[in-house]
Amino acid sequence: MSEAVAAQVRSALLRAGDLHPALAGPVLESMNFLNEVSHRYPDAISLAAGRPHEDLFDARAPERYLAAYRHHLAADRGFTPEQVRRTLFQYGRTKGVIHDLVARMLHVDEGIDVDPESVVVTVGCQEAMVLTLRALRADPRDVLLAVAPTYVGLTGAAALVDLPVVPVPGGTDGVDLDALARTVTRLRAEGRRPRACYVMPDFANPSGMSMDLAVRHALLDAAAALDLLLLEDNPYGLFHGGEHLPTLKALDTGRRVVYFGSFAKTCLPGARVGYVVADTPVEAADGGLGLFADELAKIKGMLTVNTSPVAQAVVGGHLVTHGCSLVAANTAERAVYQRNLRHLLDGLAARFPAGGPVRWNTPRGGFFVVVDVPFAADDAALEHSAQEHGVLWVPMRHFYDHPDADRRLRLSCSAVSPAEIDEALDRLAAFIASRR
Amino acid sequence: MSEAVAAQVRSALLRAGDLHPALAGPVLESMNFLNEVSHRYPDAISLAAGRPHEDLFDARAPERYLAAYRHHLAADRGFTPEQVRRTLFQYGRTKGVIHDLVARMLHVDEGIDVDPESVVVTVGCQEAMVLTLRALRADPRDVLLAVAPTYVGLTGAAALVDLPVVPVPGGTDGVDLDALARTVTRLRAEGRRPRACYVMPDFANPSGMSMDLAVRHALLDAAAALDLLLLEDNPYGLFHGGEHLPTLKALDTGRRVVYFGSFAKTCLPGARVGYVVADTPVEAADGGLGLFADELAKIKGMLTVNTSPVAQAVVGGHLVTHGCSLVAANTAERAVYQRNLRHLLDGLAARFPAGGPVRWNTPRGGFFVVVDVPFAADDAALEHSAQEHGVLWVPMRHFYDHPDADRRLRLSCSAVSPAEIDEALDRLAAFIASRR
Repeated sequence: MSEAVAAQVRSALLRAGDLHPALAGPVLESMNFLNEVSHRYPDAISLAAGRPHEDLFDARAPERYLAAYRHHLAADRGFTPEQVRRTLFQYGRTKGVIHDLVARMLHVDEGIDVDPESVVVTVGCQEAMVLTLRALRADPRDVLLAVAPTYVGLTGAAALVDLPVVPVPGGTDGVDLDALARTVTRLRAEGRRPRACYVMPDFANPSGMSMDLAVRHALLDAAAALDLLLLEDNPYGLFHGGEHLPTLKALDTGRRVVYFGSFAKTCLPGARVGYVVADTPVEAADGGLGLFADELAKIKGMLTVNTSPVAQAVVGGHLVTHGCSLVAANTAERAVYQRNLRHLLDGLAARFPAGGPVRWNTPRGGFFVVVDVPFAADDAALEHSAQEHGVLWVPMRHFYDHPDADRRLRLSCSAVSPAEIDEALDRLAAFIASRR
Repeated sequence: MSEAVAAQVRSALLRAGDLHPALAGPVLESMNFLNEVSHRYPDAISLAAGRPHEDLFDARAPERYLAAYRHHLAADRGFTPEQVRRTLFQYGRTKGVIHDLVARMLHVDEGIDVDPESVVVTVGCQEAMVLTLRALRADPRDVLLAVAPTYVGLTGAAALVDLPVVPVPGGTDGVDLDALARTVTRLRAEGRRPRACYVMPDFANPSGMSMDLAVRHALLDAAAALDLLLLEDNPYGLFHGGEHLPTLKALDTGRRVVYFGSFAKTCLPGARVGYVVADTPVEAADGGLGLFADELAKIKGMLTVNTSPVAQAVVGGHLVTHGCSLVAANTAERAVYQRNLRHLLDGLAARFPAGGPVRWNTPRGGFFVVVDVPFAADDAALEHSAQEHGVLWVPMRHFYDHPDADRRLRLSCSAVSPAEIDEALDRLAAFIASRR
């Protein structure tokens, strides 16, 4: 900015300290730092990014799926050409136009049976989280519980709506139920209102951990006993190693689970389409019962009006092309991610001796593995790793505050090839050796 | 809901009174009522909706514009097929991928010269407003000024971020500058912080009013003297009757104007793409200067991550097809909306005598005309008009609290044909006659 312009604009200056506190908070600081490091070292191999694998993208996907969705509307639903055009082009239904296909997919793939009216199609899973937290956060007493370590998108959404996040340890089962009960009791005694607990039961980001079936049932029982909503986020559940456990939502007989879904990994990140299933009943002032989904839709009307019908059509076409089964649609993707995960785990075992100071967990699916190292795996260490050894990873301390976090790092295997994993692990081993 | 299920879910019930206050606030009540009335009377002719005219939609637009944008990336920017694919399919730049084309369009059409880095591409103009208000609302002292009557989308966005809106009368010029100065002074004396003033200088929704050139200059001077940001919203400026006045942003030498744009009326509502130009400098804690756009991008990263690149590609293809000129792209649209507006104004003059109790303003462009009637034009009257006379309009009291508002209604001419306007005005005249 030139001096003349700077002088001219001086009085219109905004001060960062006068803006919303989330802008100076730890989540954004984390996200900025991690983005910035990966931009500064573009030649480093990234085991940091959880992006989908690009080799699997069909270059003509948007056009092909648009055509499939147009055909579905005309052939299966009897729409006239004017109705098809209106559905794709005009302002649309706030809760979305592919809600019926999403509900069908949930039935086919997950055995989740919900009224399509309970589904709100959103601008990615991120908007689904923001809608839900915005609705739940009514006053300063409110807090959100979240299993720690916690997905940064959730922490960011909570910061946007001024909702403090209270961590619940994941323990060895994916959630420490005793700690959950103690935390809820303590918060209520302090006059706080725990509005819900956020969990990712399948191959969680960042921990890679999953809950087994008994833990899922016990968590649902605990939520009922504590009168607590559960927010279930499931972006990675389809990328399993053979055992596809039921989601909490599939086991939920009390409409206590709000379920977040994403098409970023199972269809196309560029569509930016996700959804939330919110069939929890809401009691109105007059005693009538409504759906939580309708409250979320009211907020969505003020946030983004509706999710782009053109983008929804791309996802809708993908769904109808594969019989409304993402399981069927993602056979190749599941194979690639499983191959990469095994390759990463085998590669770690080949480079670091059992019983040594470098240890890692062994997720059965998803994108992420957590590695313990015998030194501080902090931002400075990441910088050094990127600059001197050409390999990127994520310090676990960005995801929680815990004594163990400082010596842990997250590796992701989703966006790389087996050869890149080999090279990245060689570099990681050299980096780790250099710290001893 | 069955009794068994209701009993089962009883303990998980959310209570409406425990949700965010905006959900029970007047904006959402208004939006719900208006939507509900139009759904209940689908056969009524709607002079209520401000939707774009559907006859102008090209049925193959998404596919054609996707192809044009792919071609642009390859031919003009030298992208490889992999880079094209990644741009459309993968998670993308938070501030958008068509920011350069938007900046070029602003130069070509509006003489607005801004660094493309100041542009954030958003999920419609609605998200642009939410981002801006979220950034500006730091604590409970903060308020937003807005010219009244006020667009409900703005009021809704403010409610979502707990930001009270203080009205500034539009007066006869589009904004009452004396009232603006008095209001700012009073608020500051009360310890409140007026963060900005929202204005729609061209064919405002709902008033139809525009500011002339002298008022625009005076408003900018007043904003400088009061040290106030201006939020300029311009969805209808291109649909003028021959005189295209410069926007505030084009006249803004102090980077004091945050400019909201929409492609819903000038390209395709179904893309849900808008943008905000935010080149106001922000002073960081360390004294460094940054762009307000970068603060908005940080919030966007937590709200929607990024705007669907597929949807952006549709708008980008539209822009490159027409030399980055929405003026050139919207020749037919401008003609249709001008024809409709003249037809509506002529039709009012043909049915209601000059000097009589039914009066209306005469906007030179845009979609909206405000009519004064000699009775309460309230929700009950709208119900009666819809049910007995088959014509829909909007009570102006939904947009502001003012003694005159109760006898005013808004008519929109955008989504109807001249024949429908004739029929709707006959019905409106019969309705008005029935109230005397």
